[in-house]
Amino acid sequence: MGNPSKDIKLVEVGPRDGLQNEPSHPDVDTRIALINKLAGTGLNEIEAGAFVSPKWVPQMADSGDVYRRIEKPACVSFPMLVPNEKGLDLALEAGVQKIALFTATSDDFTAKNINCSVEESLARFETLAKRAIENKMSVRGYISTVISCPYAGPQAPEKALSIASKLVDMGCEEVSLGDTIGVGTPANIESLLEVLFTQIDADKLALHLHDTYGQAIANILKGLEMGIRTFDTSIAGLGGCPYAKGASGNVATEDVVYMLHGLGFETGVDLKKLIQVSHWICETLGREQGSKVSRAMQA
Amino acid sequence: MGNPSKDIKLVEVGPRDGLQNEPSHPDVDTRIALINKLAGTGLNEIEAGAFVSPKWVPQMADSGDVYRRIEKPACVSFPMLVPNEKGLDLALEAGVQKIALFTATSDDFTAKNINCSVEESLARFETLAKRAIENKMSVRGYISTVISCPYAGPQAPEKALSIASKLVDMGCEEVSLGDTIGVGTPANIESLLEVLFTQIDADKLALHLHDTYGQAIANILKGLEMGIRTFDTSIAGLGGCPYAKGASGNVATEDVVYMLHGLGFETGVDLKKLIQVSHWICETLGREQGSKVSRAMQA
Repeated sequence: MGNPSKDIKLVEVGPRDGLQNEPSHPDVDTRIALINKLAGTGLNEIEAGAFVSPKWVPQMADSGDVYRRIEKPACVSFPMLVPNEKGLDLALEAGVQKIALFTATSDDFTAKNINCSVEESLARFETLAKRAIENKMSVRGYISTVISCPYAGPQAPEKALSIASKLVDMGCEEVSLGDTIGVGTPANIESLLEVLFTQIDADKLALHLHDTYGQAIANILKGLEMGIRTFDTSIAGLGGCPYAKGASGNVATEDVVYMLHGLGFETGVDLKKLIQVSHWICETLGREQGSKVSRAMQA
Repeated sequence: MGNPSKDIKLVEVGPRDGLQNEPSHPDVDTRIALINKLAGTGLNEIEAGAFVSPKWVPQMADSGDVYRRIEKPACVSFPMLVPNEKGLDLALEAGVQKIALFTATSDDFTAKNINCSVEESLARFETLAKRAIENKMSVRGYISTVISCPYAGPQAPEKALSIASKLVDMGCEEVSLGDTIGVGTPANIESLLEVLFTQIDADKLALHLHDTYGQAIANILKGLEMGIRTFDTSIAGLGGCPYAKGASGNVATEDVVYMLHGLGFETGVDLKKLIQVSHWICETLGREQGSKVSRAMQA
């Protein structure tokens, strides 16, 4: 079953989803250095920042400066998270070419994270996406809590399908399905994708998995088996969801690349370089190494 | 493909393979308490100790006392590792009903671990297994380094097949295939099992996977898909191979149980009780929690 392609796209979310959820607040120079180093590993999509209020998310302050100053090789795309019209203004000013929109399946979750209901977020995105596309930007959509919400509990796959369909209809090239609290097992991934595939092709979907319960790598294997070829990952396992219980969040890019290469998939990534960047950012942030591969290869 | 059974046997190796590779040396009372608590979670096979020289493996000293003093519910089996005739004498004296024999695919590895070649270990086991079976013991075999040896590098699956066949022929009820340094990906597990299945049934094989490179849960998923129903795991991820690079060793029992239950498999294990035992042993040993599930459920 699924897609026989051996080419994988990894979306490196460390500099945004990762750093946004870290207790340390690295300065702009560190964020730029991280992004430049990541681009040097062969990754071809790196989420570089977010045009959100620095009052609420100080880690993402000055994202326009970050975007302007990073090296931008033609083969690498650098999506920026945009929550509203003001964010889109800033993105357009900075010359951003790809934006990401963020919602969830659960009203309880969007209320606490983006201060509106799911329906309200979609109404807002309709206008945002239209304007972005008119300005020749491409658009990526995130749907959080697709398996379970920390407030409202398990989420039916049909919710994710309904939202994903709307995001695709408004012009999102890709919709990233997030197991925000990392509770899913491969059985949940299978149920979710079976429902999504009734209306959306695998090549328009990405999996964004957290490793809070140690299931992310197995869930990615299940996604691969079912034809998913795009995965969001975070260098050194940076970040995670601050609302999830337990310490660990985003699945580490290195651990995913290690498995993918072992399975014969092509990522274009130089694992050794990736591990060097991983150790560098952990030392810089004074943070524990969250990748098992990087820990094993440090010794 | 594979075995449609939903019943899983977990072999809890924390009290032996786990503690043997921990820097702290818990006393006999702690080892006994750990085993009794584990038996109370619903696990039905718990490796309880090893009749090896306390000079070489001080953590396993007084394994006869441990075996004599643990509670032994009829539904739980407590295999003990036996390396030689002297070890078997001690096992017989203690009334042990199941023993485990330990070899590897690589002569370099057996030379450093059991001071003989692979062939010599098999010759020794021939006599040991015969005597054990005459004494109504059952026998389990371990083969280490089935994917790769820390000294000799990658190992052909045919080596594991040849050794596993000999172990089955000499009366081993089950052969546990060990990725001792945790470098395998699901592709390696698939190649290995395809070769093994040419001569040995899935129900005579177990997988013993280390999580050094973060691949163990995905490797177990692949094993499940191919029909394996027996897995060796270690509470809190205790232990590992001291010769493997990096910090993490045995896959944590809790993380495996979490996935198995999510997939609809039956383990007989009460996950909440398991997590309590996990926190207890980590506190007792002053050790970091190695299970992501236990970490997530502590908060």
